[in-house]
Amino acid sequence: MSNLVAPHGKEEKLMPLLLEGDELKAETEKAKSLKQIKITSKESSNLVMMGIGAFTPLTGFMTKADWQRVCDNMALTDGIFWPVPVTLSTDDEEVKAGDELALVDDDTGTIMATIQVSEKYSIDKEHECKSVYTTTDAEHPGVVKVMAQPKYNLAGPVKVLSEGVYPEEFKGVYQRPAESRKIFEDLGWTRVAALQLRNPMHRSHEFLAKIAVEVMDGVYIHQLLGKLKAGDIPADVRVKAIQALVDNWFVEGTVVQGGFPMEMLYAGPREALLHAVFRQNYGCSHLIVGRDHAGVGDYYGPFDAQKIFDKIPEGALKCQNLNIDWTFHCYKCGGMASMRTCPHGKDDRLLLSGTIVRKTLSEGGELPAEFSRPEVVKILQDYYQSLDEKVEIKLHGAATGDVKK
Amino acid sequence: MSNLVAPHGKEEKLMPLLLEGDELKAETEKAKSLKQIKITSKESSNLVMMGIGAFTPLTGFMTKADWQRVCDNMALTDGIFWPVPVTLSTDDEEVKAGDELALVDDDTGTIMATIQVSEKYSIDKEHECKSVYTTTDAEHPGVVKVMAQPKYNLAGPVKVLSEGVYPEEFKGVYQRPAESRKIFEDLGWTRVAALQLRNPMHRSHEFLAKIAVEVMDGVYIHQLLGKLKAGDIPADVRVKAIQALVDNWFVEGTVVQGGFPMEMLYAGPREALLHAVFRQNYGCSHLIVGRDHAGVGDYYGPFDAQKIFDKIPEGALKCQNLNIDWTFHCYKCGGMASMRTCPHGKDDRLLLSGTIVRKTLSEGGELPAEFSRPEVVKILQDYYQSLDEKVEIKLHGAATGDVKK
Repeated sequence: MSNLVAPHGKEEKLMPLLLEGDELKAETEKAKSLKQIKITSKESSNLVMMGIGAFTPLTGFMTKADWQRVCDNMALTDGIFWPVPVTLSTDDEEVKAGDELALVDDDTGTIMATIQVSEKYSIDKEHECKSVYTTTDAEHPGVVKVMAQPKYNLAGPVKVLSEGVYPEEFKGVYQRPAESRKIFEDLGWTRVAALQLRNPMHRSHEFLAKIAVEVMDGVYIHQLLGKLKAGDIPADVRVKAIQALVDNWFVEGTVVQGGFPMEMLYAGPREALLHAVFRQNYGCSHLIVGRDHAGVGDYYGPFDAQKIFDKIPEGALKCQNLNIDWTFHCYKCGGMASMRTCPHGKDDRLLLSGTIVRKTLSEGGELPAEFSRPEVVKILQDYYQSLDEKVEIKLHGAATGDVKK
Repeated sequence: MSNLVAPHGKEEKLMPLLLEGDELKAETEKAKSLKQIKITSKESSNLVMMGIGAFTPLTGFMTKADWQRVCDNMALTDGIFWPVPVTLSTDDEEVKAGDELALVDDDTGTIMATIQVSEKYSIDKEHECKSVYTTTDAEHPGVVKVMAQPKYNLAGPVKVLSEGVYPEEFKGVYQRPAESRKIFEDLGWTRVAALQLRNPMHRSHEFLAKIAVEVMDGVYIHQLLGKLKAGDIPADVRVKAIQALVDNWFVEGTVVQGGFPMEMLYAGPREALLHAVFRQNYGCSHLIVGRDHAGVGDYYGPFDAQKIFDKIPEGALKCQNLNIDWTFHCYKCGGMASMRTCPHGKDDRLLLSGTIVRKTLSEGGELPAEFSRPEVVKILQDYYQSLDEKVEIKLHGAATGDVKK
């Protein structure tokens, strides 16, 4: 019997919606003859999350009643806790309840799933933005996506046919909840803290993970593999940099690296709750919640994502928050510390802005050893330099009329 | 209403046995006319623990049935969890059930309590030693005390009349459970980890405390004020050294220093459980359990005191163990680490034996900054040097026949 935390929902078991074997074959064949609806990368990655059971117990895209209650009360109509709408949108006027459709990823052309449409409805997008993102500011990257949604939502159960590009593109890192659970069980873990990552791991992230390693059975370094904002470091580079850190700076058997097929919403507190929901499905008893978790710009207070865990109903989530303050190296302390453990001032601490880090790396410069481990720096330097070379080749090519790939 | 963990026992409230006001006055007056029984410093400190409610829900010294069940099943006859016998011994042949006695501290001559004797019985001391200390080795300092007990045990409810030397000798550090609870409540704490200390705090202990500060509301640096083994650093020096560390190296409001009036038993795992029982009474939700907690020599495996928490009945204790591995400074990691977070070897770590630490300090030498903070080193240097001076004065005095105090 597993000692891991039970999956989310009343059934307390994983409910993957991905078909397999003959069923998959038959449904894929059938899907080819169905009316096709194009879906965004966000909808597509949510389908993969449902496909692998990471969004257990969802059975498809939400109805209007579910959407409303999730926005207003962070619960599905059956009372199960859920903090963020998972919806499908279209501007197709002809689609109606009762239709069966094939859902096609607009980027890759892959048929991701079929849906049995149970309801066609429209929503108050501003209400969703206010409820989930706490803002309707058109600059907010999560709000942008919601406001750009076509005017109808389609609800209904889905059958997932594909995991998209993830299994191949992120081989060895992309994991299904059943896989991570198996790994944790084999390691004999019960108390597992997930570290949510969407950036390379510098020493401040290493420190977060190590605090958790000290007090838990192990840490799941769990990174986002879906789309990010422009200018962010691509997932493959991050994976390599994190693996170098794990291999050289952690004790074997204390951390596991994995990835999940989702995009950032930048919904701050609400997204932190969603991160906990699906980490529970992945077998994690805890989610590390640091400063400005899942935040962007100044939309959320630095600890709003920690505080929201105190406001949800008792027992709503089995995966608990492990709050950790802002971390850094303090020369006076003589090691890594946080605002809770370092009594010194700014001048004693090593704080580098993202701009300085990027500039240093792209120029091949070294980051201080107190900021980042050398193996990680090397991988990031190589990436930034390859970017520069691409830009140079492009510029040079354009000038001579001979554009190289 | 308090958010702190409830006191131990069915009542879930502190049950201090110390009399106050007129009651105290009357009982003290009466005690003078009662037959007096001399008690050891261990018995005396256990009386103070009962007096201030730290041993809630005990109402006095244990009966034979309680003693037996505590030895065999770590429970009182009413089923309440209790890991270590709390008994009173005498070789007085005349005392009998029904007697009322005054209990007099043999070191200070103070009447500590009165007891209404309910039972006079003898015990199998070897059985107690095997059950509680896992050994009957005559070299074990806890076994020595049990084996040296006079042949009868006396059971019965006590009325405590004095807190002994503690309130005066350790003013500002000695605390009753009601006091620590008040402090934690005023700080708004719920999750409080106790750090058990019987030595000065070097950086390894600072690191233990800081790991807990990162993940809890606060840490109670809670040190033993009772008698230790010969050669240990006296409590007043420890208190000063710890205060210097707290003042200079912790963030205000994240730690509280306090002391408790007990002696070390060196009972390893069983004592760790007792430490958790009375920390619960002090308002702590967690007890930090490090390597060889409450151990001595090689009697216990380094993590036995952590493992025993998994073997007690569910719900027996509200105070949970916060296990942390062996900690040290690693030059390669560039900071403090533990066996769970440092993948490097012995040569990269700073490990000093107790002998080297004492030798360095008594010679006025500096300990490496990676081992101990300078403010702490200074206080310990002063102490060891004063010891040397005392020895010199004694030697000189003896030679001239003029022995100074």
